[in-house]
Amino acid sequence: MATIKDVAALAGVSLGTASRVLSGSSQTSPDSRARVTAAAKQLNYIANGPARSLRRSRTDVLGLLVSDIRNPFFSELAHAAEREAQRRGYTVLLANADEDAEQEAAYLRTFASQRIDGLLIAPQGSDVGALRALRDSGLPLVFVDRAVDGLDVPTIGTDNEDGIRRALTWLHEKGHREVAFVGGPPEVSTGHERRAAFLRFRDELGLSADPRLVAHGDFRAESGVEATRAVLASGARPTAVLSADGLMTLGVARALREEAASELGAVEIVSFDDLDWFDLVSPPISAVRNDASAIGRLGVEALVDVIEGRPGASHRVTTSFVDRSAGGAAGAGA
Amino acid sequence: MATIKDVAALAGVSLGTASRVLSGSSQTSPDSRARVTAAAKQLNYIANGPARSLRRSRTDVLGLLVSDIRNPFFSELAHAAEREAQRRGYTVLLANADEDAEQEAAYLRTFASQRIDGLLIAPQGSDVGALRALRDSGLPLVFVDRAVDGLDVPTIGTDNEDGIRRALTWLHEKGHREVAFVGGPPEVSTGHERRAAFLRFRDELGLSADPRLVAHGDFRAESGVEATRAVLASGARPTAVLSADGLMTLGVARALREEAASELGAVEIVSFDDLDWFDLVSPPISAVRNDASAIGRLGVEALVDVIEGRPGASHRVTTSFVDRSAGGAAGAGA
Repeated sequence: MATIKDVAALAGVSLGTASRVLSGSSQTSPDSRARVTAAAKQLNYIANGPARSLRRSRTDVLGLLVSDIRNPFFSELAHAAEREAQRRGYTVLLANADEDAEQEAAYLRTFASQRIDGLLIAPQGSDVGALRALRDSGLPLVFVDRAVDGLDVPTIGTDNEDGIRRALTWLHEKGHREVAFVGGPPEVSTGHERRAAFLRFRDELGLSADPRLVAHGDFRAESGVEATRAVLASGARPTAVLSADGLMTLGVARALREEAASELGAVEIVSFDDLDWFDLVSPPISAVRNDASAIGRLGVEALVDVIEGRPGASHRVTTSFVDRSAGGAAGAGA
Repeated sequence: MATIKDVAALAGVSLGTASRVLSGSSQTSPDSRARVTAAAKQLNYIANGPARSLRRSRTDVLGLLVSDIRNPFFSELAHAAEREAQRRGYTVLLANADEDAEQEAAYLRTFASQRIDGLLIAPQGSDVGALRALRDSGLPLVFVDRAVDGLDVPTIGTDNEDGIRRALTWLHEKGHREVAFVGGPPEVSTGHERRAAFLRFRDELGLSADPRLVAHGDFRAESGVEATRAVLASGARPTAVLSADGLMTLGVARALREEAASELGAVEIVSFDDLDWFDLVSPPISAVRNDASAIGRLGVEALVDVIEGRPGASHRVTTSFVDRSAGGAAGAGA
C-alpha cells in the first residue's frame, strides 16, 4: 500500500506539503494541491498514519491542551470550546501544560496515544519540533490564543495590539504619563505581542519611556507581585500599572496594596483579561476584555473544519475595554 | 475463557461483589474474598472486560471528570491531581461535567472508549446506574469531593460538617444571630451535607431559625446572586451570609453590594471555599479553607493504589478557617 512518503516523492513535494494538502490545509499552492492530488490518485493512496487511520474510525472526541487550567482565561476558553464541540456532536478531553514546555511535550505524546479526532492547543512556544511532527502525522491541529512561528496551522488568537492600544489610550486620556507594564514571558507569542504593542503605543502617545517601568512575569499571580515590587524598588513612581494577563493583575493588586500601607498613594490598575471579581475591589479594576469564549468557539469551528476536510480559518478576535472608573461607561455599580 | 459472570456464579456472589474483590476493593468480606479468589483460580479466570484488558496494557493515563472547570475549587483540585500523577509517572486527561448529569454521562462514555488506566470523578449524584456499570466493568474508580450513596468506591471528600461548624462558631462569636445560608444543590452530596450541618449547628448555637434565611443555589455565581436577592426580598434581615461554595460567594457579594447602595448596612460574608481575591475586597471575605489540593493529591494516591491492586483508602480532609476580619488571625493585610 502506498504511503504519504510515496505520494510526496511522486508529486515532487516535501512530506509536510503532501500532508498539508491531504489534510485540507488552506496554506498550500494550487500547483502543490494539483500534483499531490494526482499522485495520491495514481498510487491509490489511502491515509494510513496512526492518527489518520483513527480519524477514519471517528471517535467524536477532540483534545484541548491549555497553558494553565488555573488561569480563568483558559477555563473560560475550555468551557466555550466544550459547548461548541457538544453542539457539533463532539466531546472534549482537556490537558494542562501548566506553562511548562516539558509538560506540554508529555501531553502531546499522551494525545498521540489516545483516540482523538483532532487537537486544539495553546502552545508554550518553545518546542516547535514536537508540534511539527504531530501536524505531519496528519492529526488535525488548531492553535488557540497563542501561535508558533513557522508552523502552518490555523490559529485563533486575540488582537493583542489593539487591546494594548485601547488600554494605553484610556490611561493617557485619564492623564497618566508614568505607566508601568507587567508583561508576560517574551517567548510566548501573546507575551511578545503585548510587550511590542506597549512599547509602540507608549511612544506614540508620548508616555514615559523610563525603562524601569517595564517588567515581565510568567502569566502567574506570584510573578505579578514580584514584577510590581521590582518596578517600585527601582525607584520608578508609576501612577498606573498595565498588567498583561488576569492572573498577574491579581499579583499587581496585592503588591500595590502592600505598598499603599506604607508610602505610595493610589495607583490605577488596568488588566489585559477581565476577571469576574474586578468590579468588587475598591477601586474597581478596568480591563481589556479578552474574549476567551469566542476563541474557544472559533477554535472548535476551525478544528472541525479541518477534521471534515475543509480549510480551517485563522482569526484575530477583537477586544473591548471595560471602563470601571467612577465616570466610566461600566460605572462602579455595573 | 471464563468471564467474571462465571466467577461470580461459581463463588455464589453477585457480579458487583466479584468485581470488587477482583479490583482489590477494601469493602468486601473475608468470606467473599476467599470464595471469589478460589473461583477465579479454579476457572483460570483472566480479567477480560474492555477496561481491564486495557489496564493490562497500561497507558499511564488517568481520567479526571470534574463538576465545573470554571470553579476555582476544581481547577485547583485538577492541578494538584496532575502534579501528583506526574510524580507517579502518569498524565491526566480532564473532562468537565459542567454541573450537568447528562454531560457527565456523555463523558463517562468518552472515558470508557479511551485508553485510560483509571478514573477520578466528582459525581453529579443523580445517575448511579452509569457509575455502577463503569465500576463493574473493572475500570479503577475513585470519587473526589462528592460521594454517591450505595456505591462502594473509595471517596476523598471534605469534612463538610466541621467546616460549617467552624464558620458558624466564628459568626456566633462575632455576635451574629441572623445568619443566612446560601446552600448548594441538595441532590449533590456536598450540597446536602453542608445544608444539614448548617441546620444542626444553627440550632445548637441558638442562631435564628427563621426559614426565610435559608436558600439554595447550584454552586454557580449567578445562583448566589438570586438566592441572596430572594432572602432579602423575603423581608429577612441577615447580619451575615454563609455561602456554601466560592462561586456562589461571588454572587452573594455582588447582590449585597447592589443592596448596600439602597437600604442595607454592611452584611458580613463567610465563604465555604477560599478564593484568591477574598483578601482584596473591602471588607475582606473570611472563609472556610476547603483543601482542593489535598483532595486532588489523595484522589490520585487512592486511584493508583486501586490500579496497582491495593485497596484505595477513603478520606475526609480537614478544613481550616481563614479569619480576615480586622482583629482576625489572618488580618486585613495577609
